[in-house]
Amino acid sequence: MAESHRLPTTARVAAAPELLNSPRALRQLTASWRAAGEVVGLVPTMGSLHAGHLSLVGAAQSECDRVVVSIFINPLQFGVEEDYLDYPRQFEADLELLSEMGVDACYRPEVRTMYPDGFATRVVVEAGSELWEAERRPGHFTGVATVVTKLLAATGLCRAYFGEKDAQQAVLVAQLVRDLDLGATISVCPTVREPDGLALSSRNVLLSASGRRAARCLAASLIEASRRFDSGIISGPELAQAASEVIGAEPLASLDYAGVVDPADFQPLAQATGGSRVLVAAQIEGVHLIDTALLGSPPRLSG
Amino acid sequence: MAESHRLPTTARVAAAPELLNSPRALRQLTASWRAAGEVVGLVPTMGSLHAGHLSLVGAAQSECDRVVVSIFINPLQFGVEEDYLDYPRQFEADLELLSEMGVDACYRPEVRTMYPDGFATRVVVEAGSELWEAERRPGHFTGVATVVTKLLAATGLCRAYFGEKDAQQAVLVAQLVRDLDLGATISVCPTVREPDGLALSSRNVLLSASGRRAARCLAASLIEASRRFDSGIISGPELAQAASEVIGAEPLASLDYAGVVDPADFQPLAQATGGSRVLVAAQIEGVHLIDTALLGSPPRLSG
Repeated sequence: MAESHRLPTTARVAAAPELLNSPRALRQLTASWRAAGEVVGLVPTMGSLHAGHLSLVGAAQSECDRVVVSIFINPLQFGVEEDYLDYPRQFEADLELLSEMGVDACYRPEVRTMYPDGFATRVVVEAGSELWEAERRPGHFTGVATVVTKLLAATGLCRAYFGEKDAQQAVLVAQLVRDLDLGATISVCPTVREPDGLALSSRNVLLSASGRRAARCLAASLIEASRRFDSGIISGPELAQAASEVIGAEPLASLDYAGVVDPADFQPLAQATGGSRVLVAAQIEGVHLIDTALLGSPPRLSG
Repeated sequence: MAESHRLPTTARVAAAPELLNSPRALRQLTASWRAAGEVVGLVPTMGSLHAGHLSLVGAAQSECDRVVVSIFINPLQFGVEEDYLDYPRQFEADLELLSEMGVDACYRPEVRTMYPDGFATRVVVEAGSELWEAERRPGHFTGVATVVTKLLAATGLCRAYFGEKDAQQAVLVAQLVRDLDLGATISVCPTVREPDGLALSSRNVLLSASGRRAARCLAASLIEASRRFDSGIISGPELAQAASEVIGAEPLASLDYAGVVDPADFQPLAQATGGSRVLVAAQIEGVHLIDTALLGSPPRLSG
């Protein structure tokens, strides 16, 4: 396993996590932990776990007494023409990884448990609902907000861990937790990357070898935007253009968007600063890939 | 106090409830109760407490170890032309009633605490969103769903009490609690009425003496629909028409709607049965009044 993939070390005894498949079971277990004074950590995932997810688990284990990892491929956040059916699934391998890490519980509800017949409620976050991923994937963030509300409501008071790669999602989750008084504490953990800079994503396995090579252009575009910023260019549109040109130069990539934004609200910036966020998204072989970094903190290549 | 207004008796020691004004304070207090093995009851109100609210408190006290009453006039559930500013407010009197009943805590957040600048999340229940109160008051139930989600999320695992008068609201709340895995148990308690049948409502104090007399037509319309049903009429539209004619005969009343519906989903029924629900709503002197009863269980007059 490459250096960047080394798993967080843990002193916990490796054992299979307790498997939970209903909100009630999750609520009862976490309530018993809290009643014993323990801090509960939640790592929401869609499975196909990679070192990015495992770094979230490691962060949760370092800050919490108990850690639940949820595995649920949420149909509500996929558009009708998106890859819900093709999304990678590998539950046995996931469970083995969670066992190795000594995760306490794995919450894996069925779709019919989460969305039974007659399900009729949506959580809608209106801020930023026309920007970037929200614009490109209508309904996506409503699906995310709805499932995250369900997961946090069933877990109860906890710390919850999200990856910086999905930065717009993390900001949305922080907003709904605040707005709905869910009481969770949201932690956003750094993106884990391949040696050539590619951000880890469960979707990467859907790429061919040549698509995988082409996918390097996303991280490269973030590096180029940061390089231009370091050379004195502060125009947001100009920096975004520089990023989009790197992706545009890759024959297998089709640019979805590139932007330089305020990291708090994702509004495009006319003038960038060191803390501004660069966002890029592209299709490669029909696979939707996104990446992001703060200007001044570009991806580092280790390969 | 009239017979129908007699307060539930309680063996609890009368003492001022603990006052809470933030979700965090509410969460901490209820968590400490649950950690001690106590069952928590929540009675959400908009204040101006009357015997209807107090019957909810009594039900909560009979089933729970600890009871919180929330008092929050929720601007989000009032339309721009509705009576948010005119809605009755009498916090000191409310607090005295809660003290007399030995309520453990009163949650009374400020509007800016519930909806700070930048608040951007809505809970939308799509089922029944075009029916009756939902049709008459666009956005009303989204406001209700959003504030109830916040109250239940901050309270944590609890039993929550709602009045049958707002039957459509109670069904909506049960739906969102189920859909969002909020884990609360919803209890719906019978409507408390004046001796002449008028359902208690905080808005009743907004009526003049003649408006107050006119308001008897709502309960009378429910009684008439039940009487016709008992006489063998089972056509839903015909029974609804009978109710609407009673209200139409009152010069001060302006009918909003009358319907005979399935009590589970509020869809109009072609043919009624003993468990069908009659709904009526009318304006009297600009005051929005609603009432409801099951066919076969009409309001009883005690005066």
